[in-house]
Amino acid sequence: MFLKRIFTNALLLPMSEEDSPVFQGAMGIEGDRITYMGPVPPAEQLETYDEVIDFNGKAILPGFINTHCHAAMSLLRGYADDLPLKKWLEEEMWPLEARFTQRQVHAGTSLSVLEMIKSGTTCFLDMYDHMDTVGEVVTEAGIRACLCRGVIGFGSDELREHKFKEAVQFATEWHGQANGRITTMLSPHAPYTCSPEYIRQFVEKAAELNLPLHTHMSETAAEVQQNVDDYGVRPVEHLRRLGFFDLPSLVAHAVHLTDEEIDILFEYDVKIAHNPGSNLKLGSGVAPIPKMIQKGIRPSLATDGAASNNNLDLLEEIHLAALIHKGVNEDPEAVPAQTALRMGTIYGAESLFLEGQIGTLETGKKADFITIDLTGPHMQPLHDVISHIVYSASRSDVIDVYIDGKPIMRNRECLTLDEEKIRYEAIQAFQAIAK
Amino acid sequence: MFLKRIFTNALLLPMSEEDSPVFQGAMGIEGDRITYMGPVPPAEQLETYDEVIDFNGKAILPGFINTHCHAAMSLLRGYADDLPLKKWLEEEMWPLEARFTQRQVHAGTSLSVLEMIKSGTTCFLDMYDHMDTVGEVVTEAGIRACLCRGVIGFGSDELREHKFKEAVQFATEWHGQANGRITTMLSPHAPYTCSPEYIRQFVEKAAELNLPLHTHMSETAAEVQQNVDDYGVRPVEHLRRLGFFDLPSLVAHAVHLTDEEIDILFEYDVKIAHNPGSNLKLGSGVAPIPKMIQKGIRPSLATDGAASNNNLDLLEEIHLAALIHKGVNEDPEAVPAQTALRMGTIYGAESLFLEGQIGTLETGKKADFITIDLTGPHMQPLHDVISHIVYSASRSDVIDVYIDGKPIMRNRECLTLDEEKIRYEAIQAFQAIAK
Ligand SMILES: [Zn+2]
Ligand SMILES: [Zn+2]
Repeated sequence: MFLKRIFTNALLLPMSEEDSPVFQGAMGIEGDRITYMGPVPPAEQLETYDEVIDFNGKAILPGFINTHCHAAMSLLRGYADDLPLKKWLEEEMWPLEARFTQRQVHAGTSLSVLEMIKSGTTCFLDMYDHMDTVGEVVTEAGIRACLCRGVIGFGSDELREHKFKEAVQFATEWHGQANGRITTMLSPHAPYTCSPEYIRQFVEKAAELNLPLHTHMSETAAEVQQNVDDYGVRPVEHLRRLGFFDLPSLVAHAVHLTDEEIDILFEYDVKIAHNPGSNLKLGSGVAPIPKMIQKGIRPSLATDGAASNNNLDLLEEIHLAALIHKGVNEDPEAVPAQTALRMGTIYGAESLFLEGQIGTLETGKKADFITIDLTGPHMQPLHDVISHIVYSASRSDVIDVYIDGKPIMRNRECLTLDEEKIRYEAIQAFQAIAK
Repeated sequence: MFLKRIFTNALLLPMSEEDSPVFQGAMGIEGDRITYMGPVPPAEQLETYDEVIDFNGKAILPGFINTHCHAAMSLLRGYADDLPLKKWLEEEMWPLEARFTQRQVHAGTSLSVLEMIKSGTTCFLDMYDHMDTVGEVVTEAGIRACLCRGVIGFGSDELREHKFKEAVQFATEWHGQANGRITTMLSPHAPYTCSPEYIRQFVEKAAELNLPLHTHMSETAAEVQQNVDDYGVRPVEHLRRLGFFDLPSLVAHAVHLTDEEIDILFEYDVKIAHNPGSNLKLGSGVAPIPKMIQKGIRPSLATDGAASNNNLDLLEEIHLAALIHKGVNEDPEAVPAQTALRMGTIYGAESLFLEGQIGTLETGKKADFITIDLTGPHMQPLHDVISHIVYSASRSDVIDVYIDGKPIMRNRECLTLDEEKIRYEAIQAFQAIAK
């Protein structure tokens, strides 16, 4: 028997293609699934539920989906800010990250997952190291995640082979764990950190295991130029030739693209993780999102790691996606509010190949949803709920978070994680590796 | 006798040129002035204060200063979103605004002032109509403001003359009111809504009354072209010839500027109100802020009206200013975090010609300050407080607001305004003019 819950007096924002907002609506769930969306049912039907929760005018919408992150890096938030990507990575991040053990990954990932839950993210993709530890944090926190061991292909053949086996073993063992909340991908870090042969090894294994692929691509102009210098082609053609796009695949960034490259990405149905905050902060550039959308691509949104953002607030990425492309293209109709909110929800689900399960609120889908308070002064008058959520709301307007039908945050209190302990352990774990 | 208060166990961010953050510091005030900044004094000195308030690790910094706003327009927040500026103004905003009476201005301004206080703004510039009503709201709310009757020069000679007199009368009567919290400027709306003769009339009166001037300038490319078509020169040269820059003056937007225009603005010490959120949302473009800063200009930050933003959160503008110029210029060192925070505080004070009174926390200045909670998961580990405030914090981290030494918000509760009443009246006032 599944627990039956119904949430009443809510403003429903299903974010599906057809449905428009429903005022004074109700959503019913059984166990981890949505079973009812519509007007508040009469009293005799309400009695069939185990729990009736009055949402008192709050909006209900699908949880936000963050399609590219390195959660453990929150330990380095604000550390060595305002440097160019190459210098920041090679001189600041990598030397410190080399000292990360399970302890740092546990502490940093816990801090990040707490931050994501408190800003309404119900599912995130994580690409990092010590992924068993990440899997454990995800299981405990009750969040949904797509996990991959991100592999940098430097060093000896033995080291590379070891990392490859580790990535494959992790992906095999953890796929479907935590009541199916965890899925996995294979993930060579980037064309500039992995040789073509090494990338091809991942592609072949992904085909064999029926897993998607994930990588960083075309984040900076310098990296694109280096790809041309090293391999004679730009990254999109490079990955295409390696068979990367023949499989379900997700690329992070895609900032520096020609029109022909956009055509190829569309043709191969490559999923895009757009990271506006990180791309701006690192000075990488502004991805051609309006052109992608015009072509028919449905880009998702992501924060990247907290060290380059410096937060993991997907609502802020939604806000940035709605603002920056209008300004940069001098077109107030670029990326309308509704599209930006879709990028943060259903397009995110598509990017993780989970659109059958999450991303909209529809009967039969998993009950991954959040509530948003609409009573703050910045939300008045309530002319347009979606506009207000995209342009005016902030993370603290997210009040409740449910994942797989279970309450994870209620009235801004996280029920699965100990906030004070996580804060303390994050500071301790950083100090243990600080210079 | 003045009430003496001291705030202890705070992280002091004075934002002055020389001072760096002081951990475990204290700030003492007498009446409306700061009289002490430094380490927590010994017990016998604490006893000389009427009130000792333990800030328990929160950061203290100068209140945010919003240098360009049309507060009453919050009634139109989210109304007719995502349209080009000209169409949005002429077809949507102006017809509705034409129905605004004192009632709408009171309701909209109250809503905006509440929103600004709750996001840490302690001083704002307002350019609108029915300014006596705005002055009353400011007086009641306890906020600081620079107010000007914004004059659009369309219509008959009689109407123009009437508006001019109204603007002058308002500026004369209200300058120095509310214990000096209110100052005034004269403000022809823009070169594209006021004839050169009309603008010159304001310039001459401002010189006579010793008041600064404020206007919109070079917000869109189309408006710059229209200025060239109508008057043969771009707006900067146009205003320079009208003597606008011979007086203390502040221009809002300054998005479309040549290098020569930046030189002129620097040479005449023209103050700039940079509105990143509004410029992005309306598709107006991205102002050349890094070039201005390199030249020596110290631009301030502003929200513009809530109808084009869609909020009045200056911390978000600080965040945008720190992010977008890095991304657009592909330079991660453009507008560092410290500069962005200065733009929102001391550069704001300079833009309103109030830098002798506010904008930094120094003994002798007015006690306009806010506290920020540093314990949220998005603020850990606390490697760099200024970076965290600029890149990671959000409005709900602002906990207390003091203006003129008086508590205006404590623990996120606004003490001077009735939040529920304001929300109700805003909705009612909009409905009274809705089509
Ligand atoms: Zn990344
Ligand atoms: Zn304006």
